[in-house]
Amino acid sequence: MVCMFQLSSFLWLVTLFFTAEANTCNVTGTWQNDLGSILKLSVDQGMFIEGSFHTMVETSKGSAGSTKASKVIGFQNVGDEPTFVFSVCWHGGSVSTWAGQCFGQADHAQVLKTIWLLRSSVSSIEKNWKATRIGEDIFYLMKKP
Amino acid sequence: MVCMFQLSSFLWLVTLFFTAEANTCNVTGTWQNDLGSILKLSVDQGMFIEGSFHTMVETSKGSAGSTKASKVIGFQNVGDEPTFVFSVCWHGGSVSTWAGQCFGQADHAQVLKTIWLLRSSVSSIEKNWKATRIGEDIFYLMKKP
Amino acid sequence: MVCMFQLSSFLWLVTLFFTAEANTCNVTGTWQNDLGSILKLSVDQGMFIEGSFHTMVETSKGSAGSTKASKVIGFQNVGDEPTFVFSVCWHGGSVSTWAGQCFGQADHAQVLKTIWLLRSSVSSIEKNWKATRIGEDIFYLMKKP
Amino acid sequence: MVCMFQLSSFLWLVTLFFTAEANTCNVTGTWQNDLGSILKLSVDQGMFIEGSFHTMVETSKGSAGSTKASKVIGFQNVGDEPTFVFSVCWHGGSVSTWAGQCFGQADHAQVLKTIWLLRSSVSSIEKNWKATRIGEDIFYLMKKP
Repeated sequence: MVCMFQLSSFLWLVTLFFTAEANTCNVTGTWQNDLGSILKLSVDQGMFIEGSFHTMVETSKGSAGSTKASKVIGFQNVGDEPTFVFSVCWHGGSVSTWAGQCFGQADHAQVLKTIWLLRSSVSSIEKNWKATRIGEDIFYLMKKP
Repeated sequence: MVCMFQLSSFLWLVTLFFTAEANTCNVTGTWQNDLGSILKLSVDQGMFIEGSFHTMVETSKGSAGSTKASKVIGFQNVGDEPTFVFSVCWHGGSVSTWAGQCFGQADHAQVLKTIWLLRSSVSSIEKNWKATRIGEDIFYLMKKP
Repeated sequence: MVCMFQLSSFLWLVTLFFTAEANTCNVTGTWQNDLGSILKLSVDQGMFIEGSFHTMVETSKGSAGSTKASKVIGFQNVGDEPTFVFSVCWHGGSVSTWAGQCFGQADHAQVLKTIWLLRSSVSSIEKNWKATRIGEDIFYLMKKP
Repeated sequence: MVCMFQLSSFLWLVTLFFTAEANTCNVTGTWQNDLGSILKLSVDQGMFIEGSFHTMVETSKGSAGSTKASKVIGFQNVGDEPTFVFSVCWHGGSVSTWAGQCFGQADHAQVLKTIWLLRSSVSSIEKNWKATRIGEDIFYLMKKP
């Protein structure tokens, strides 16, 4: 198993003992980005991310489905400020994925700094070249688990 | 549920009836990219991707772990040539994610056209700006399921 | 000639007449991003961007040269809130390019919203896959021309 | 001046003397990518790239203008296999930029391996998130200078 809970726990204990003031960040919780989209994440076995993404934007009317909400799956890696990845599958035929790192900051604030890809469905391989959009999202913690 | 098996099946039947020669592509199977990395994928409930990724390259010695292989999870969307996303969590603390579309071609050849992000772990939020690499991967089908 | 001054001027007059409150943005000026880097831009013939970029960050010590400043060239497109692109060539052998759009906002604030690529030099084509980083930069106007 | 001709010349002489078989690549010439687009480049003062780009694809009808050709400007860095960047300004209001490296290969073949950004114009900052596409282009040398 790649991103092990055991290693994560051990590093956490070591860090707690030697550097009690180190920044830590926990991806579990409810997050919001600058566009108002809501991301709910929980971590299972220290590595599997599950949750939901409720988007406030669409590339075209209806492409995110009637509820504009989708299931999220992904991975969290190890460490005090772990990297992670999570993905969404949209009603309109497209998919999105975010890769980033969870950072702890002064006064217990936490942020998820991510880069995302939005892959649209195209009708033939000749149109593949124009199917991928890219951008950055910063998520701020709204509510702890 | 977002990327529904029912809808996928229905579209498949409609396509089969009206346009029997339409290209189709199935992400399940064993794939290889230009760098020699091996990707094994299977799809559960028509939408959940599981599998493994055995990389032939690393950004630095050891960053992909001793086996250079990692578990894969992701989503497949609906359609004859579905979009998909899959992700990997590496031993060295980084994560990767691929977003793309499965294309069928003449004489039953199939390719996965993807764009990927490789997110490295950095020691502080000040270094976040340089943590994300990007590139393209094309996977060719080696073995059907 | 592609990005014509004449067209730009005409659109500007039309906009001025019909929608006097439309947002406008002018890339000429001195800008700063969140990392503290300073960007000075001027536009010639309505389409050619020239200027300088003084970076506050480097991927490794010295990669931006002793002065950490480099010449900038690029294009500005037409419109009230024009898209643009500008590039830099670094002492250490790498190159950077930013593509984005200039947005005017309430109380005359202006921002450049950009996505950038940083391409490092690698010693062989086998290492090409890992040579490109990506990120987002927002530049705020410090001083008008 | 950043990407100096003098340094480039010196490195070239040193390389010629010690490693006569080293790969070299020269961006000057006429290149073609997999989509059939034609790129003509020349280098001035060892660092300034000028030329033209004739595209075979458009995101929507007319977005590349009636001639589908545009002026190119950019930088070439130093070295036997130099990194480079070049940009284009499109009639339809968008801009493109390519960052990559020039690689020499066996039997004098040369390729430009690039990642590109295509930035579209959007009508307001709220739509900025969806304005940037990304992809990869490989250019093959058609004709030497």
